[in-house]
Amino acid sequence: MTSIDLNTTTITRLSQHIQKKEISPVEVIDIFLNRIEQAQEKLNPFITILDEQARQAAKKAEDEITKGRYRGPLHGIPFAAKDLFFTAGVKTTCGTRILADFVPNEDATVISRLVDAGAILIGKANMHEFAFGTTNLNPHYGNVRNPWNSDCVSGGSSGGSAVAVATGCALLALGTDTGGSIRIPAALCGIAAIKPTFGRISKHGVYPLCWSLDHPGPMTRTVADTAIALECLAGYDPKDPCSQSVRVGDYAAGLTGDIRGVRVGVPDTFYFDAIDPEVKAGVEAAIDRIRELGATVMPIHIPDLETAAAATLMILSAEAAACLEKFHRTRPDEIGKDVRERLDLGALHLAASYLKAQRIRRKVQRNFAEAFSRVDVLITPGVSIAAPRLSDNTVRVDEADIPVGVALTRCTRIFNLAGLPSVSVPVGLTESGLPIGMQVAGKAFDEATVLRVAEAYQRHIYQTEHWPDLS
Amino acid sequence: MTSIDLNTTTITRLSQHIQKKEISPVEVIDIFLNRIEQAQEKLNPFITILDEQARQAAKKAEDEITKGRYRGPLHGIPFAAKDLFFTAGVKTTCGTRILADFVPNEDATVISRLVDAGAILIGKANMHEFAFGTTNLNPHYGNVRNPWNSDCVSGGSSGGSAVAVATGCALLALGTDTGGSIRIPAALCGIAAIKPTFGRISKHGVYPLCWSLDHPGPMTRTVADTAIALECLAGYDPKDPCSQSVRVGDYAAGLTGDIRGVRVGVPDTFYFDAIDPEVKAGVEAAIDRIRELGATVMPIHIPDLETAAAATLMILSAEAAACLEKFHRTRPDEIGKDVRERLDLGALHLAASYLKAQRIRRKVQRNFAEAFSRVDVLITPGVSIAAPRLSDNTVRVDEADIPVGVALTRCTRIFNLAGLPSVSVPVGLTESGLPIGMQVAGKAFDEATVLRVAEAYQRHIYQTEHWPDLS
Repeated sequence: MTSIDLNTTTITRLSQHIQKKEISPVEVIDIFLNRIEQAQEKLNPFITILDEQARQAAKKAEDEITKGRYRGPLHGIPFAAKDLFFTAGVKTTCGTRILADFVPNEDATVISRLVDAGAILIGKANMHEFAFGTTNLNPHYGNVRNPWNSDCVSGGSSGGSAVAVATGCALLALGTDTGGSIRIPAALCGIAAIKPTFGRISKHGVYPLCWSLDHPGPMTRTVADTAIALECLAGYDPKDPCSQSVRVGDYAAGLTGDIRGVRVGVPDTFYFDAIDPEVKAGVEAAIDRIRELGATVMPIHIPDLETAAAATLMILSAEAAACLEKFHRTRPDEIGKDVRERLDLGALHLAASYLKAQRIRRKVQRNFAEAFSRVDVLITPGVSIAAPRLSDNTVRVDEADIPVGVALTRCTRIFNLAGLPSVSVPVGLTESGLPIGMQVAGKAFDEATVLRVAEAYQRHIYQTEHWPDLS
Repeated sequence: MTSIDLNTTTITRLSQHIQKKEISPVEVIDIFLNRIEQAQEKLNPFITILDEQARQAAKKAEDEITKGRYRGPLHGIPFAAKDLFFTAGVKTTCGTRILADFVPNEDATVISRLVDAGAILIGKANMHEFAFGTTNLNPHYGNVRNPWNSDCVSGGSSGGSAVAVATGCALLALGTDTGGSIRIPAALCGIAAIKPTFGRISKHGVYPLCWSLDHPGPMTRTVADTAIALECLAGYDPKDPCSQSVRVGDYAAGLTGDIRGVRVGVPDTFYFDAIDPEVKAGVEAAIDRIRELGATVMPIHIPDLETAAAATLMILSAEAAACLEKFHRTRPDEIGKDVRERLDLGALHLAASYLKAQRIRRKVQRNFAEAFSRVDVLITPGVSIAAPRLSDNTVRVDEADIPVGVALTRCTRIFNLAGLPSVSVPVGLTESGLPIGMQVAGKAFDEATVLRVAEAYQRHIYQTEHWPDLS
């Protein structure tokens, strides 16, 4: 047991030790709860820590495994859930004090799926208010700080989830992504994560922000772990009207490390503009490495990306205002300033503008479908900048001052509009020691290829063996 | 040939004569063109009459049939299309002078399907401007008058299509239905027609008014003819993103006349309120007849129908304003007053209100799904009133003056929101000699049952053997 370094482990590795009974889920949970204690004080990744509940679940897992009833690679693995996933009997705040006392009476479908696979819910992760805040300055549950530099943001809105995973408080965290809220904190905290295809993972029991852009997804330390988690989470759910009945792949088994002949498109506009030079260099170097692994890398033109990015913001703004209208109307003073200002704006959008944006969406989807007739994946930066400081409202990029929220979501949000799967994978650190993320996106429901490319890169090139030190 | 009374014939009957070569499509077309000449002068059902094109197509059909290449029950049958179905090389005005010179370069999918089945396009039918007018006072192409009383409206927006069929200018007409625009003129003119399930019939090449409520469908003299037409028109079309891939039934063969044991629900609220007493009595008598045919008739409660009716109007208003925004913005003076006023209003709707209406839609769909777990079809009045006079702006119902447009769409429009199939079938005449329509609605994609019930009624009870006299 002493040979297992729980500070640097992954689902892939720890599950083998658990299966071989080299460590018990009860021991695992105790060690992780200790790490949560350390991380919570410094970085504040959790709103609720479920120590008792987790210990009980660990005991049950231990019993089952002792009796030979090993359920699979998630059995005994501690996970966190962003505090907008419904958890029966456990408060689910959605990051707002308005819902401080909201206790759902059933689990979200994805929580049930993980629990059925034997995973152990260890805590509810901190998040931007309603997943709609634009800064890390959460007025209700405090800032989530970046584990690589605690003066910097963790990114959001699934910042607590990313920090929980990066610091080894959990090996898996559930996040949601409406304009990048899974991939941005993953990139800024140096972990792997996927926003799958729209309809791939059930949204039943997930507090909505934006019906047509919200995507739940797993956040983990490595792409291999992401594949294991996605295999459990994906699949049709009749309780979610957006859920699609499309075959779920053998994602983990498909990680062959072989990407020879895979056609990789690198967009020739938009994604590499308005970008921090260190991030650009890091992602370009990673693309060179992917070419060296045998992929065919080519430039590709996707039209009208600026329009697509604007349409995404319009839909997000209008749907969020409609979704949160009740709170915005009746309890505005309890909503944080950043969220309230966005709701004030969203409430004024005209239906005709919203519908125009939705029509642009159809065009954008056609443009991406056309691109994916020529390439298998697209590679872009994950986020155009490394983690800004908590105090920054704007960042200086390309000699312009850009609002932090706009800079952070630039590379991610169009894939919410298009509904296409995209992974964020770490590709190194800036000179000041902040993670750089790369995004690999693919065809609708082709998570398998996206994961295979990202994992091959991670397996051969940038092995994420070092993690932020909590001590 | 003299034994065939073309004034009262149907697809079902005429097709047998054509198949047996007792009459040639060339003779048929000449007789129908003669009737068009009579009807056009009195009632104005057409915007464009395609005499030359129809005669050529008839010659081709005659040749084929002579050579033994009979295509099926639509071969040689004259049909009309509402003037918003794209017809290659033939102007398609959408009822507005703004598009007076618009000539598409391809046929709508449904036009191609009918032509491939051997049907002959005889004219483009008059309609409300953009299918959005509220009155029959069309400022561009003139009023369409009711064949049963030319002082009365034909109903809209597919009024020309209904009149063409009622007067025997065509045995089939294509209409579109966004809030009742197929079923209302069908009811008011005494013919049968279906608005099928959303996604059942392709909208490719159909000028849009409202993306989420528009439904194309066939209008015919009898339900048996509707079934023949639907069998040709229904089916998946990759060119229409709303099209659904669901098996098309053998609708005509399924008309057994036997409805013993069919569970018929009669809504206990909304549909029989705010209704003309003669219409109510007519529909109730028809329901009694259906019970006598062996169906199990029961009252059923569907909640929140008033809200559903309001949500439909909101979505229609907002989407129409977005859809026609270009014309509304650049050429408002050329748009009729009734349409312009609706667009002025629609352009002011907030995105949040539109989204609220779309959320109500989901609830309405669940409510109907619940109702259809207990019954096989619902029966309601087709339209709450018989055809009002052209000069009427309001009608007096239940001691209240109601705007004509509101009264006409009351019973039909919620089925557009729910996207469910519904047939309008004639059930008799008022004392003043105006048709009364009954609506039979069913589960999504269960057009077969809806048609079977309506046809059984028509077969055994109210045989539509008399038609308005043009002379």
